[in-house]
Amino acid sequence: MIRTKEDYIQSLKDQGHVVYYNGKRVEDITVHPAFIPHINCAAKTYELALDPQYEDLMTATSHLTGKKINRFTHIHQSVEDLIKKVQMLRLLSHETGSCYQRCVGFDALNAVYMTTYDIDQKHGTGYHQRFQEFLKFIQEENLMLVGGMTDVKGDRSLPPSKQPDPDVFVHIKERRDDGIVIRGAKAHMTGGVNSHWVLLMPTQSMREGDEDFAVSCAVPLNAKGVIQIFGAQTNEARKGSIDIGNINFGLVGGESLMIFEDVFVPWSHVFMAGEIDFAGLLVERFATMHRQNYGGCKGGVSDVLVGASSLAAEYAGVEKASHIKEKLAEMMHLTETVYSGSVACSAMGAKTPSGAFYPDPLLANCTKHNITRHIYEIARLAHDVAGGIIATMPTEADLKSSEVGQYITKYLGCKDGVCTEDRIRILRLIENMTGGTALAESMHGAGSPQSQKVMYGRLGKLEMKKKLAKRIAGVES
Amino acid sequence: MIRTKEDYIQSLKDQGHVVYYNGKRVEDITVHPAFIPHINCAAKTYELALDPQYEDLMTATSHLTGKKINRFTHIHQSVEDLIKKVQMLRLLSHETGSCYQRCVGFDALNAVYMTTYDIDQKHGTGYHQRFQEFLKFIQEENLMLVGGMTDVKGDRSLPPSKQPDPDVFVHIKERRDDGIVIRGAKAHMTGGVNSHWVLLMPTQSMREGDEDFAVSCAVPLNAKGVIQIFGAQTNEARKGSIDIGNINFGLVGGESLMIFEDVFVPWSHVFMAGEIDFAGLLVERFATMHRQNYGGCKGGVSDVLVGASSLAAEYAGVEKASHIKEKLAEMMHLTETVYSGSVACSAMGAKTPSGAFYPDPLLANCTKHNITRHIYEIARLAHDVAGGIIATMPTEADLKSSEVGQYITKYLGCKDGVCTEDRIRILRLIENMTGGTALAESMHGAGSPQSQKVMYGRLGKLEMKKKLAKRIAGVES
Amino acid sequence: MIRTKEDYIQSLKDQGHVVYYNGKRVEDITVHPAFIPHINCAAKTYELALDPQYEDLMTATSHLTGKKINRFTHIHQSVEDLIKKVQMLRLLSHETGSCYQRCVGFDALNAVYMTTYDIDQKHGTGYHQRFQEFLKFIQEENLMLVGGMTDVKGDRSLPPSKQPDPDVFVHIKERRDDGIVIRGAKAHMTGGVNSHWVLLMPTQSMREGDEDFAVSCAVPLNAKGVIQIFGAQTNEARKGSIDIGNINFGLVGGESLMIFEDVFVPWSHVFMAGEIDFAGLLVERFATMHRQNYGGCKGGVSDVLVGASSLAAEYAGVEKASHIKEKLAEMMHLTETVYSGSVACSAMGAKTPSGAFYPDPLLANCTKHNITRHIYEIARLAHDVAGGIIATMPTEADLKSSEVGQYITKYLGCKDGVCTEDRIRILRLIENMTGGTALAESMHGAGSPQSQKVMYGRLGKLEMKKKLAKRIAGVES
Amino acid sequence: MIRTKEDYIQSLKDQGHVVYYNGKRVEDITVHPAFIPHINCAAKTYELALDPQYEDLMTATSHLTGKKINRFTHIHQSVEDLIKKVQMLRLLSHETGSCYQRCVGFDALNAVYMTTYDIDQKHGTGYHQRFQEFLKFIQEENLMLVGGMTDVKGDRSLPPSKQPDPDVFVHIKERRDDGIVIRGAKAHMTGGVNSHWVLLMPTQSMREGDEDFAVSCAVPLNAKGVIQIFGAQTNEARKGSIDIGNINFGLVGGESLMIFEDVFVPWSHVFMAGEIDFAGLLVERFATMHRQNYGGCKGGVSDVLVGASSLAAEYAGVEKASHIKEKLAEMMHLTETVYSGSVACSAMGAKTPSGAFYPDPLLANCTKHNITRHIYEIARLAHDVAGGIIATMPTEADLKSSEVGQYITKYLGCKDGVCTEDRIRILRLIENMTGGTALAESMHGAGSPQSQKVMYGRLGKLEMKKKLAKRIAGVES
Repeated sequence: MIRTKEDYIQSLKDQGHVVYYNGKRVEDITVHPAFIPHINCAAKTYELALDPQYEDLMTATSHLTGKKINRFTHIHQSVEDLIKKVQMLRLLSHETGSCYQRCVGFDALNAVYMTTYDIDQKHGTGYHQRFQEFLKFIQEENLMLVGGMTDVKGDRSLPPSKQPDPDVFVHIKERRDDGIVIRGAKAHMTGGVNSHWVLLMPTQSMREGDEDFAVSCAVPLNAKGVIQIFGAQTNEARKGSIDIGNINFGLVGGESLMIFEDVFVPWSHVFMAGEIDFAGLLVERFATMHRQNYGGCKGGVSDVLVGASSLAAEYAGVEKASHIKEKLAEMMHLTETVYSGSVACSAMGAKTPSGAFYPDPLLANCTKHNITRHIYEIARLAHDVAGGIIATMPTEADLKSSEVGQYITKYLGCKDGVCTEDRIRILRLIENMTGGTALAESMHGAGSPQSQKVMYGRLGKLEMKKKLAKRIAGVES
Repeated sequence: MIRTKEDYIQSLKDQGHVVYYNGKRVEDITVHPAFIPHINCAAKTYELALDPQYEDLMTATSHLTGKKINRFTHIHQSVEDLIKKVQMLRLLSHETGSCYQRCVGFDALNAVYMTTYDIDQKHGTGYHQRFQEFLKFIQEENLMLVGGMTDVKGDRSLPPSKQPDPDVFVHIKERRDDGIVIRGAKAHMTGGVNSHWVLLMPTQSMREGDEDFAVSCAVPLNAKGVIQIFGAQTNEARKGSIDIGNINFGLVGGESLMIFEDVFVPWSHVFMAGEIDFAGLLVERFATMHRQNYGGCKGGVSDVLVGASSLAAEYAGVEKASHIKEKLAEMMHLTETVYSGSVACSAMGAKTPSGAFYPDPLLANCTKHNITRHIYEIARLAHDVAGGIIATMPTEADLKSSEVGQYITKYLGCKDGVCTEDRIRILRLIENMTGGTALAESMHGAGSPQSQKVMYGRLGKLEMKKKLAKRIAGVES
Repeated sequence: MIRTKEDYIQSLKDQGHVVYYNGKRVEDITVHPAFIPHINCAAKTYELALDPQYEDLMTATSHLTGKKINRFTHIHQSVEDLIKKVQMLRLLSHETGSCYQRCVGFDALNAVYMTTYDIDQKHGTGYHQRFQEFLKFIQEENLMLVGGMTDVKGDRSLPPSKQPDPDVFVHIKERRDDGIVIRGAKAHMTGGVNSHWVLLMPTQSMREGDEDFAVSCAVPLNAKGVIQIFGAQTNEARKGSIDIGNINFGLVGGESLMIFEDVFVPWSHVFMAGEIDFAGLLVERFATMHRQNYGGCKGGVSDVLVGASSLAAEYAGVEKASHIKEKLAEMMHLTETVYSGSVACSAMGAKTPSGAFYPDPLLANCTKHNITRHIYEIARLAHDVAGGIIATMPTEADLKSSEVGQYITKYLGCKDGVCTEDRIRILRLIENMTGGTALAESMHGAGSPQSQKVMYGRLGKLEMKKKLAKRIAGVES
Repeated sequence: MIRTKEDYIQSLKDQGHVVYYNGKRVEDITVHPAFIPHINCAAKTYELALDPQYEDLMTATSHLTGKKINRFTHIHQSVEDLIKKVQMLRLLSHETGSCYQRCVGFDALNAVYMTTYDIDQKHGTGYHQRFQEFLKFIQEENLMLVGGMTDVKGDRSLPPSKQPDPDVFVHIKERRDDGIVIRGAKAHMTGGVNSHWVLLMPTQSMREGDEDFAVSCAVPLNAKGVIQIFGAQTNEARKGSIDIGNINFGLVGGESLMIFEDVFVPWSHVFMAGEIDFAGLLVERFATMHRQNYGGCKGGVSDVLVGASSLAAEYAGVEKASHIKEKLAEMMHLTETVYSGSVACSAMGAKTPSGAFYPDPLLANCTKHNITRHIYEIARLAHDVAGGIIATMPTEADLKSSEVGQYITKYLGCKDGVCTEDRIRILRLIENMTGGTALAESMHGAGSPQSQKVMYGRLGKLEMKKKLAKRIAGVES
């Protein structure tokens, strides 16, 4: 069982999974500068769970075993659990200023839990019991899972079964007595390179003919045929210097393209295999629970950005200017707006037939949609407050150069008593928290904006609202 | 005790309070077209409380007497109570498409309840017991209270005690053995003309010298010296025709200027009289609880507007245009955003020393601040969807004219099967829900935007956030 | 020939056109309170043309006759003319704070001028010569024209020739030797009730089968069969008191529904009769020239609103608060943004084959689209700065009442030295400039937002932009 | 004289100026990958001037010599010149998708030209004649200048003469018979490393005591004591691979910190030396002319981004989705909005006493202020359209790897017929055009947002607007 940060790192060393980065195979990600910051982030989910002051948020009691478990492996048993999830995320963001990746697997566990129950009710299958066994294993070992949903999709105007190359959606290539063989690729696998297992789910609703694409199963990442290629990130080459801003943790989750080259999965790890009528529901549930998170995690990240912006203003001697105070207030306003969404959808959560609790899907949707706007605006305001220097500042190597370091020290200091290096560190933090990859993650994580917009048509109760309007206006027809 | 709508109307006829409108004294507001829509709204708070299906939201159990009471007279005993308040408001908005006014007094009751407890704890006074007696009376009689906070303020750059005319803030003119004599005026008294009592509170923090202005007390509106002048509203002259859109209910709360010409208040109804150190706290608490409401009530009103806009598009045959669907989705998104705020501040509520529950002040503040933006944007989108006809449509008199009615019927119909009058009713509803007074109420009710912005400076924990940023950036000083 | 305001009013008295308002025929609009403010506005286009200081903007030299004419009857002969048009509009808005209506006919004249030329070139018809004669008549007599474009349209999902009732689009009912007979109705006829002639145009592109709907012609408003029904406006019943805010001028253009009951038009006044291939071009040209205006006229109106908001802050003693200054600056920023659009499309204008100058259509489109957003935001900011009192203020009758006038005077004054009535006048001006009809006009005048959005697809040169991107990214295919 | 790209590169090789990058001295910037993209951009200002089809925009006739010169060295002689400047910038952006840096010096030349004339008029100095000689030299040699305005400023709450270290503002350290010695540093020197001369100006208004800081002069960049340190840029390490997106040109201007270590400047190159009364005017003029540019250059850059986003949608098969079309239309709308600002301030330009033309300062200010918002929103929309893949895509090295390249090719292709590498190139272009440094440049170039906001207070004619409101509301006092 993994308990400490050290256990976790050792487990990654041990598992021997296949990871490529920038064209090369990486033998040990735990010592490679591109991966260390992401590992440090995920490790926080283990570390803080050992800290008594955070125990209430970071751990829970398994409803299956009655044992204390890491909350990231828990099935929500109450509204309180839903709210604690959001609070836990804000806390972790405060510690890391970043993404700690483990919520994807967390949400996948809950979504598959609920949905296997419903499949069994309708089809008389035995997926739920099978999944409970798997869940117990994850809880006991305290493993890190990545949830695998987004297929690469090929031509988006075509359904899975009509694609020229079926591999653009992960699918069952072969059904055998002892299990299935799957093939395809999942994109944007947050935390994939430093996880232990992936829990695969379909990427969208399926229709007749798509049966082989309606597949959910769990695969250890060191299984034969699983290959990951790690993505580029904004300013990836700065990792290891203060130029990266967040000196210990990743700026984003760290995503991989995960390829399944005819990977065998025994039946004990298969949780859906052809039930096209439940693919859409599983997607929606995962999406809802993942959307629930964003006001917690991005809210916490924004708190760090507010603090950094405030420091930048202070170092330059402008912290009392009314327009600076107004902009910081606006950043905080947008932060609390997104946080409110996460809290609200949790507070309005309800029990599913499986017994697991589920946030209000309309409000979770609303939360994520605000993220796609407000995080960008918060970043814009941070640029405004920080000043143009974030775009033109020389590097750590310049600062430490014997030839020009003196000039940096002299000219990029500000108020008396402000250490130039401190100022540079804070400005770099702002620069890197507001850059490309971090923002794009806010846009597309847990579904692109349009996927949220269409939910209003489905969940918005338009017919009921028309009736209200008619009654009030005295329209009888 | 008032139970039914009829009881409520009779009580207004009986009380003989002094109301002026448009330059003239109104002897019986219950039969005057300017007031009927507002009375109908407030009456809904009585009517729905008698409907078994709404009992859970509309009523509560008094913590003082154990009796079932109207929720609008209840002191919040739990987070659940806070959430039910918000749900009750959305429900009432669905019924009325408007403001039913009674939350002002509800919030005043809770704010004074909490604060009298704290005053007594510090100063050894007996306000809280006194207030409990008053509260029991209100609960038993099921009376409608207006909360009286906003003074007319005179020159806003001066404190109360430095104003050339002290009357611009309500104050104690005389302290007598049996009570106090107050003088001044309160502005924007929502529902004042059709309430029974006013519960007065100071309008802002007070400093030394302002003791006479730190006054809270309850006054029956038919007390000698209380005079109300009812305000103008957008399109007030259309009341009673379909041109007003909302044919039965007010479009806004209906506000009065309430004047106190040396009104005597016995000590039994005085709940603060000089404790300047608690004036600010009382204001903040009232503001917080009032800000909590807006996602519920305006959220519900926006639901009606969404329904009306959707109907307007349908009548014109454009309901399937993608830009129409997008705009309706956006209206719903903004609606759920504000509702989320109200839910979240309630879910994060906590117990005060008095035992009463109190919403999270930062999140309540955030909720109201979004109202000052989103309701305007929702109105703008409704204009977009409804079409230019809302600005140029002839009147009900034209529609019913024997000379030109045929043209209206012929030319302002749309799709086959749509009744022209129905279309006109819905368009008028949109026009009037998005007009001047309704919007201004969203801006300034429960405090103007700047009053919310400054709260971020106070409650936003900027120092904590700076520390987070420093740690993450490796700044040690 | 009409020269003075008095001439203009007399001409309206004389013409005996048929106008209904609120269900009744109005015999003389020049003495009816509902119409006087609109007549005063239009009269300004005559008055200022006589003022030497405005001669350069308000008049022009006819390219047909060489005589000095009112600019509102001019055909643009240069980029300078296009820019002067915009400056003239801002000037007139400064004088009236409102809509002076005459640009609709102005734009119709220019659009029909250009397009008749092109029709003749293609079809060998003689419309352009005919139109020049008509134009000379208008210029010499200095008449006020309304441009008649928007049909009531019926079911918007059907083309004109497929509507169950063909009358929902104005069309040629009969072609005779001496002329045509038209039938139908035009909606939103700004200034229709106080104009002399209407210049009709089709409302949209036409296709085969729609020939009878592709009609442009001029009709005197006192022609047999022309009936106008005047629309309701926000707070119409306040006209004549200070409660209306703008005490002399309309708050909006004043729109009518204009009905054509088998109206005969001689061939000399027919400028298109079946040329479906030019209907779309005529619409686009009129729309472009009308969209050009909005940064001028609404920019000027917003200047007045900025001034009023600034005064409201000053009267309340808060004009030095930084958030007030920031909001006024933002209002000015949005105002100059929309004005820039009008200037830019004019500066980028070009000569058409007819010799008349035409603004850049993409930039004109952009201008109007910003109006549909920024005028709403300016109104929102005005509400913020003005304070909640704009929504709850008693009436002029209260102020002047012997019973309660003293309270209004005492309690609604502010700073020492501010006259209460002055403050009320300014607050009423803000209230009424930001109300319903005024905003809706910004949304839908010169085409609804979606009609502008689609223009970007047509005029935005997307293919050229794709090529730029490919070259820069090194994409060769 | 520099004519061709080759001439320009040779001139940079020859001049031997001192440049540091990432802690090291760079001997020849023309062969260093960090600098080549920026040099390529600036070279376009030479190349296109030789292309007959662009001659009208790219060249002008010197008013001093009558010779044909590069427009970047021209003094504006008409409104037409002002408009052509904007059109030239949009053209260059279409060619480069980037910043070509040379407008800074262009604007500095014009600002110093106008202001030396005015100084001489008031003070009887001879700066203007001296400057004309310098200008002739620049025009004849076709040199590239950088305008040097922004000082590093130290503690922003203190004026130059009160700073603990006077060097935080460039200043005259010594006045000698033959010239002056200057000291200090200028930040954000766009194109500094690949320019020939810098034209220094003060950074803000000066007051008594600040005389030594009120200095304007020209310095060749290879002068003794001039040291430049090049700034870091988003993804700087990707230069030279397709991962940088814009494969030939910089993504931003390329800024340096420029240090003056006791640099001697002969009187012939000094254009202000102590005239504190003109420091503010010079700053304002430079700012106005620089703000004028942004709708041209960023408008053109946004055109490229629109094209790239459209291609990304097309490659994924979603180009016909209505929400995609709507988002592209919105991007184009914002682009034309900012372009309109640049055109409008040019069209409203006027002659200064020196004879040079000057754009309308309020509208130029408005233009730049919109840039600080709209470029961010355009970037946000580009992220939305492009999809999450821009944040997680593997590198060129992966694509070309013999081990995993096949997976990239297979899984990151999309529609049949789309080359994966093409798609990657376009996505990388979007990623990098919307990243950190590019956005921050839009925020702070030509002055931070607050510097624009305050201009509305100064140039917005608030008193005139108050008078308009008073007249319309009938307020006489």
